[in-house]
Amino acid sequence: MTRSYLDWNATTPLRPEARAAMISAMDVLGNPSSVHSEGRAAKTLLERARAQVASALGAEGQDVIFTSGATEAAALVLGGRDLHCAAVEHDAIRSWCREDLSVSQAGRITVEDPGQSSVQIANSETGVVQELPAGLAVSDLTQGFGKIPFAFNWLELTAGIVSAHKLGGPKGIGALIVRRGTDIAAQLRGGGQEMGRRAGTENLIGIAGFGAAAEAASRDLEGGIWQEVEKLRNILEMVIADRAKATIFVGNESRRLPNTSCFITPGWKGETQVMQIDLGGFAVSAGSACSSGKVRSSDALRAMGYGAEEGACALRVSLGPDTREEDVMRFAEYWLKCEEKHRARRG
Amino acid sequence: MTRSYLDWNATTPLRPEARAAMISAMDVLGNPSSVHSEGRAAKTLLERARAQVASALGAEGQDVIFTSGATEAAALVLGGRDLHCAAVEHDAIRSWCREDLSVSQAGRITVEDPGQSSVQIANSETGVVQELPAGLAVSDLTQGFGKIPFAFNWLELTAGIVSAHKLGGPKGIGALIVRRGTDIAAQLRGGGQEMGRRAGTENLIGIAGFGAAAEAASRDLEGGIWQEVEKLRNILEMVIADRAKATIFVGNESRRLPNTSCFITPGWKGETQVMQIDLGGFAVSAGSACSSGKVRSSDALRAMGYGAEEGACALRVSLGPDTREEDVMRFAEYWLKCEEKHRARRG
Repeated sequence: MTRSYLDWNATTPLRPEARAAMISAMDVLGNPSSVHSEGRAAKTLLERARAQVASALGAEGQDVIFTSGATEAAALVLGGRDLHCAAVEHDAIRSWCREDLSVSQAGRITVEDPGQSSVQIANSETGVVQELPAGLAVSDLTQGFGKIPFAFNWLELTAGIVSAHKLGGPKGIGALIVRRGTDIAAQLRGGGQEMGRRAGTENLIGIAGFGAAAEAASRDLEGGIWQEVEKLRNILEMVIADRAKATIFVGNESRRLPNTSCFITPGWKGETQVMQIDLGGFAVSAGSACSSGKVRSSDALRAMGYGAEEGACALRVSLGPDTREEDVMRFAEYWLKCEEKHRARRG
Repeated sequence: MTRSYLDWNATTPLRPEARAAMISAMDVLGNPSSVHSEGRAAKTLLERARAQVASALGAEGQDVIFTSGATEAAALVLGGRDLHCAAVEHDAIRSWCREDLSVSQAGRITVEDPGQSSVQIANSETGVVQELPAGLAVSDLTQGFGKIPFAFNWLELTAGIVSAHKLGGPKGIGALIVRRGTDIAAQLRGGGQEMGRRAGTENLIGIAGFGAAAEAASRDLEGGIWQEVEKLRNILEMVIADRAKATIFVGNESRRLPNTSCFITPGWKGETQVMQIDLGGFAVSAGSACSSGKVRSSDALRAMGYGAEEGACALRVSLGPDTREEDVMRFAEYWLKCEEKHRARRG
């Protein structure tokens, strides 16, 4: 069966550039901490990838600390700090923060004390993009990096969290970007890697893939690829809105990521939709992948004022540069057929 | 120039089996936490690798928690526990422990309270193998895994730490093995991955490589490959001992890893040796890679009773299954030539 992968906010296909960089890094033998020739070659590769990530982020001159992903970067910068955040943040952020920032129905977060707050650049479930206030302590840039234009150096924030696998890099690698001079106490201790901020032999193959993916994503973003994706997302929403009148498109009055559509079909559980849609050949999601084992209402949607029942009936469709119009049209047709059956069953 | 890599305890070449598994995993698109077909395929790959690692370790029926390496596994199991350890442990262990266990000149650690202690199975610098006491809380199995036969299920310990890149897997992936039922509080929080003990999207490509490498390493170990390596190590030591009479072979009265030789040439700094030897085409090491940026005396050797001067004059040569007799003989000749020059300069 032809399958269409429409779950790019959960994870993305590996970009050919990342694949090539990783395969090439497999032949680099040394440990970047070793002083011999093999070690220095590994170190060169590591630093090249660091420069690629910094450049793609507009973070030249800042410190890029490679971690095993956004979750580790969050623990590293947020652990023990008890910053403010909103309930629309990813669980990896919420775990370390006081969840007391308010969120509007449109998904906008109100920040009172930016220097003591962590605010995402974009929401993984709804795609809602925040305007980050100046002087922000931390921002989870994961869903924005590679999809919308921004430069770390212009955002006036102290630390940013990114992940490779949301922009065509491998899973299990990410980074914390910190304004140079910021104190970060290592949580992984032992060796002196990552300027003493993160011990442990570096994931060299993954890091090489991250560097290449970031560079390619940045080039594609500048080339306007996401404007094409946005057109497809808008077509999808128009087709659905036209034929399933009760559908609620979450956050669509706000600026959103170009690839994300989150819509509620009252009375039809998101988890059920995901399963039915999967059988039809489409990968989509209800809530974020990390929590998708749990059948529950979306906390992000609850924070936006939707009821528990509505929050449990949301589906997220997230497109990528590989998505074609036929994927979107086939999906819309299949989903509408399922939705019609669902309505018929409920009478 | 032909180069010989003789620094296998720092890191190893990627095994072909690991390379193939990683390239194959690059085509597995899903996030293992997603419930759709792509997600379930990723999950299957993840669980296959977990079974491979468990089987290679003789840890079937135990919990294998994938981490970003041994350093993270150490932080996860040792953080906040203040266990006893000896100064011969890796810095990633020492960072979290009370360093009060005594070590003999032969490198043997005396353990008084196994249930409150962390003891390595083998030392990275000297290769000295410990007899682990029953009831041990934690063992760093990193240098032993794949090189000497043991089974986690027979060791009577609660937790073991392993790393992929010491046995032909990729860097940046490791695991904590815990006896089932052991409480482990997650340090990386957010998603429910790794049975709630380690949040964050899994490094699927790295994990696939770890699984394949562990399986291949286990097969090679059973096939007797390390006995051949040991013969080469012994030839190396004989040739050097025969012609550089003042050389001290550290720990050679103890059981050692089959591939490791650590020798002191009084008056000739290890760091200087590494640089000179590198120019001759050989990758070797002074101390562990993680600390090799710092020119300092080896803490492990100090703990064994060697003086600061002696500890600073040690060289570690660590061989692997790819090492040929000609590598070892060329190295010995080159090293002896340098040593002779060094003696001549000192008069």
